[in-house]
Amino acid sequence: MNAAPGAAADAKETARIEAFSDGVFAIAITLLVLDLKVPRGMAEGRDLLAALVGQWPAYLAFVTSFATIGIMWINHHRMFTLIGRTDDGLLVLNGLLLLGVTFVPFPTGVMAEYIPRAAGRVAAAVYSGTYVVIAVFFNLLWWYAAHYKRLLMSAADRAVVQAITRGYSIGPLCYALALGLAFVSVAASLVLNLALAIFWALPSQNPLVKKGEAP
Amino acid sequence: MNAAPGAAADAKETARIEAFSDGVFAIAITLLVLDLKVPRGMAEGRDLLAALVGQWPAYLAFVTSFATIGIMWINHHRMFTLIGRTDDGLLVLNGLLLLGVTFVPFPTGVMAEYIPRAAGRVAAAVYSGTYVVIAVFFNLLWWYAAHYKRLLMSAADRAVVQAITRGYSIGPLCYALALGLAFVSVAASLVLNLALAIFWALPSQNPLVKKGEAP
Amino acid sequence: MNAAPGAAADAKETARIEAFSDGVFAIAITLLVLDLKVPRGMAEGRDLLAALVGQWPAYLAFVTSFATIGIMWINHHRMFTLIGRTDDGLLVLNGLLLLGVTFVPFPTGVMAEYIPRAAGRVAAAVYSGTYVVIAVFFNLLWWYAAHYKRLLMSAADRAVVQAITRGYSIGPLCYALALGLAFVSVAASLVLNLALAIFWALPSQNPLVKKGEAP
Amino acid sequence: MNAAPGAAADAKETARIEAFSDGVFAIAITLLVLDLKVPRGMAEGRDLLAALVGQWPAYLAFVTSFATIGIMWINHHRMFTLIGRTDDGLLVLNGLLLLGVTFVPFPTGVMAEYIPRAAGRVAAAVYSGTYVVIAVFFNLLWWYAAHYKRLLMSAADRAVVQAITRGYSIGPLCYALALGLAFVSVAASLVLNLALAIFWALPSQNPLVKKGEAP
Repeated sequence: MNAAPGAAADAKETARIEAFSDGVFAIAITLLVLDLKVPRGMAEGRDLLAALVGQWPAYLAFVTSFATIGIMWINHHRMFTLIGRTDDGLLVLNGLLLLGVTFVPFPTGVMAEYIPRAAGRVAAAVYSGTYVVIAVFFNLLWWYAAHYKRLLMSAADRAVVQAITRGYSIGPLCYALALGLAFVSVAASLVLNLALAIFWALPSQNPLVKKGEAP
Repeated sequence: MNAAPGAAADAKETARIEAFSDGVFAIAITLLVLDLKVPRGMAEGRDLLAALVGQWPAYLAFVTSFATIGIMWINHHRMFTLIGRTDDGLLVLNGLLLLGVTFVPFPTGVMAEYIPRAAGRVAAAVYSGTYVVIAVFFNLLWWYAAHYKRLLMSAADRAVVQAITRGYSIGPLCYALALGLAFVSVAASLVLNLALAIFWALPSQNPLVKKGEAP
Repeated sequence: MNAAPGAAADAKETARIEAFSDGVFAIAITLLVLDLKVPRGMAEGRDLLAALVGQWPAYLAFVTSFATIGIMWINHHRMFTLIGRTDDGLLVLNGLLLLGVTFVPFPTGVMAEYIPRAAGRVAAAVYSGTYVVIAVFFNLLWWYAAHYKRLLMSAADRAVVQAITRGYSIGPLCYALALGLAFVSVAASLVLNLALAIFWALPSQNPLVKKGEAP
Repeated sequence: MNAAPGAAADAKETARIEAFSDGVFAIAITLLVLDLKVPRGMAEGRDLLAALVGQWPAYLAFVTSFATIGIMWINHHRMFTLIGRTDDGLLVLNGLLLLGVTFVPFPTGVMAEYIPRAAGRVAAAVYSGTYVVIAVFFNLLWWYAAHYKRLLMSAADRAVVQAITRGYSIGPLCYALALGLAFVSVAASLVLNLALAIFWALPSQNPLVKKGEAP
């Protein structure tokens, strides 16, 4: 019933890479909670409340990392709706991306610990720096797959592919801006990181969505 | 063979969101065990036994959170049996719900640490407060999907949809009651949380189940 | 093409419960490694080696729990190859079983900490006691599903079903024996736990396997 | 439509073992981040930066273990593309392999802690020693499945099977070499471990890939 038996095997292979990647995204996003520490030894309710409220940088780091890994997952999935087959280069580049994603809980913990202190700028720079690297890995993965439509489905629309290439290439620049901002204002750097995740979640920013909505 | 080729793609998209969400639910429910701490430095068997028994608030918190995440998973699944397609709004609202679910191990740890102490009321209030927020996210997700049956399958029964809307809207109120109870009696607040999970697991409380049992 | 459209929906439901359960088994079995602690502050290589070797009870606990969760996963899967549909009772009883499985890393950590100490007997008793409870949950789940073949596939062989019922009913007794042995000899209790996992992994002990090998 | 109804059941069984194994690989690879510790109590930004940079052995251990578990996942998957059915022996041997994989975060933590210290050689030897054992388990699994093509798909090419057998048999020797190198130079031992993961990721080293690329 299938004209190209190889196409089914290709789809199975890309589905398996996607399923493994989904697992890594889901675990990394859920491990973020381990960066939140239960305050110990509070005698009274008001002490506990003050300690919990005083941990606001940790909650902010938790929410920002959650939103960022979440938007990465969405984009990874959107990318794979266009990728029709895999090869070893894609496996390796996807592995680099996942290496970055599994690393996120560490700079999140650093930022949660140091935001309100003198070392906060370094912490925020390390945090945004991690996202610069991940955004570069994202672009490498996409460029590799999309170059001359090497691994894309034949039905992939050229205009959509180019729009994605343009869209993704802005990512590293945005996070580099957040990295620079860290040395001016830790708060501004963090707000930019969170704003980026929210902005990229908006459908109007995503060419794939527009295409998806077309009949 | 498929009258609407878009329907198959829609089903694949909702299935993937559901699979990712299932992964997050499964990981969050399993991470709860990390809130249980091995007592250190007990010299004799009876000391160890006393220390283990003395940790009963931690076990109670573990079981209550397990039951609550479990019932959330069941309800999330039931909800998605009626949802026929997805869009970016649903992705974002589902992300908010998962943010709440991955957060649960933290207030569980707070409660496990502080139940038997003076700060127990604040801990129990934070715990129930988390569930108030998650229950609100649940309602947002459902309202968004069910409004004018925006994202529901066309076969979804209007009476069932309305019954779910009514049923879910009670959730935030119940958890708000548990939150208020925390300031009267920590034990009563906890028992209410556990009772809610058990109550919602009963089939007679769930319109979706009744529908599912109809031929 | 399907004579019974409900059968496909039933199969999808049981598949989803199985997938969620598989996720919980996989996470619980992987979290066991967190019970192994890196020795701190060893000055010389021989100190580190001695500290690592001195942690043998932790490795033994790790391997025993890994083997036990592994055999539970296999048995859970075998059980679900016979279960053809689900209901809320099955969901709740399966949830109880998973509650037990996610709990395992805690008594494993207790045993790893206390085996070579005076409190080792209590630790080993708590460890085996956990398995007694899980084995009871296993039997409840199976009895519920198999009673008058309530939820079994119509093709399920009555002799196989009875053999499983007999086989599972021995589980709680075996673990109760290990619990009792803990007060005589911690080592004997542990060896029995490990031996049980290995014994149940042998194909000749499992009626489902024999059936599976029949043409 | 299926000539051999048993083949479909066999494929379902092997798919489920593969899915469970994938889950364990994904969790183990993501738990590695817990070996990275947030430096505590740094007063100034430059102290934090120095502390983060000073943790380079931990990052090296993280990346090496990530790459090694990643390449194991790829090889496990490639192996299962040739395995057509399962039995209890395969389940047990696959369980042994997963036991090794879930253990990896522990020697990774030991190495991260001790590389720059006097005990670094023992740490690096334990690390490579873990991979020797896992590589042996890999060979056992493959020999068991491939012996007289016991569990392989009938379509599996004999030349490909023999090439894999040869390729895998080198694994334990390579890691044993890294183990020995640890006593000469910790750095050389680590670099060899990382180099092995990268080398095995290259498509030209993998007979299965060549076969996969054939039309």
